[in-house]
Amino acid sequence: MERHFDHDLSELKQRLLTMASQAETAVNRAIEALTTRNYDLAIQVKQNDEILDRGEVEIDELAIRLLAKAPLATDLRLVMVAMKISQNLERVGDEAAKIAKRARDLSQEPPVKINVDLPRMAGLALVMLKGALDAFVNRDSAAARALIPRDEEVDALNKQINGELTQFMMSDRDSIPRCLNLMIATRSLERIADHATNIAEEVVYLCEAADIRHTAK
Amino acid sequence: MERHFDHDLSELKQRLLTMASQAETAVNRAIEALTTRNYDLAIQVKQNDEILDRGEVEIDELAIRLLAKAPLATDLRLVMVAMKISQNLERVGDEAAKIAKRARDLSQEPPVKINVDLPRMAGLALVMLKGALDAFVNRDSAAARALIPRDEEVDALNKQINGELTQFMMSDRDSIPRCLNLMIATRSLERIADHATNIAEEVVYLCEAADIRHTAK
Repeated sequence: MERHFDHDLSELKQRLLTMASQAETAVNRAIEALTTRNYDLAIQVKQNDEILDRGEVEIDELAIRLLAKAPLATDLRLVMVAMKISQNLERVGDEAAKIAKRARDLSQEPPVKINVDLPRMAGLALVMLKGALDAFVNRDSAAARALIPRDEEVDALNKQINGELTQFMMSDRDSIPRCLNLMIATRSLERIADHATNIAEEVVYLCEAADIRHTAK
Repeated sequence: MERHFDHDLSELKQRLLTMASQAETAVNRAIEALTTRNYDLAIQVKQNDEILDRGEVEIDELAIRLLAKAPLATDLRLVMVAMKISQNLERVGDEAAKIAKRARDLSQEPPVKINVDLPRMAGLALVMLKGALDAFVNRDSAAARALIPRDEEVDALNKQINGELTQFMMSDRDSIPRCLNLMIATRSLERIADHATNIAEEVVYLCEAADIRHTAK
């Protein structure tokens, strides 16, 4: 029984790491598809989303099996956190798929003649996601805590880009549908940073047994 | 020990029902603020959001305490489902707050001269939310299953309204910022229907021990 538990627990961790790397890849590719106007890559990201959907379901199954074995308090926290992180990664995959969908549509249209700082926002969202996952792997509560305030930078960039796109739409009405696609992609980046923040909060909970959600704002 | 467990379990259920009713109220009021252009009501909904934030944290605490007591498989499922439903309700609260924020801004501007079917979409999202929560209270798996396909109606309405707003923006550029506010509110309604779908899927899992997520699409 004990051995089964340890085996399932290490499988849970392994699967979560696989999911983390899949989610990161999806976001990277979606952003690449968007910025390089790559239709085929966009389609591929959209199609791969079900891998993360499956990951979430499988991790929940494993977690339920583990929870039924009455683990120690520290194991219990790890299982709970694994479930929450996997859920966030699944959502990250959804957002990557949404970006890919907009990238697909935008790749078929002339480029919008506006220079918004999407690459910086994408870079920041990715840094947050990678940082949160590294903090989980290294059980680094301080690194996780340091990440959380960066969400505000992403929110500020999101607001700025939305303002610029709105102005541009008002000056060039033919650009409206394409600008809306860019806005939706921007919003997905903002959501990815939110999920990274959630993951960081779960890491703090795992390391310190302190629930810090909803305390920052 | 056994008695503590039963006591905590019934407290968990009670708190979840309270949260459910708070989330429903928030959505109702946010929609009312939006449709009646009521500034004060919008501010109130935004301020009340922290009640649901707190609810989520408290339910997780209770759930962890319950899980540590090695419950039966059926209780275990209930605790897991309670956590997931509370998380969805917290997000519903977030979306209500977003709608309220847009309602607040829109109440300070002249009305947009376009008739989009926001009331129908809002009504449908509310029916789904209420239906999912009733299905949970009544442990009615069939009702929960019947609700899930309705999410597609909401998605279709969302698409339709977005198309109409985009067209209108192209014909009247001064309306662009206000139309964007309406689009964001519409998207929040769509997300509320998604959360209702998630809750319905959790009810199916609770009643049938079958994970049906990601199988519909």
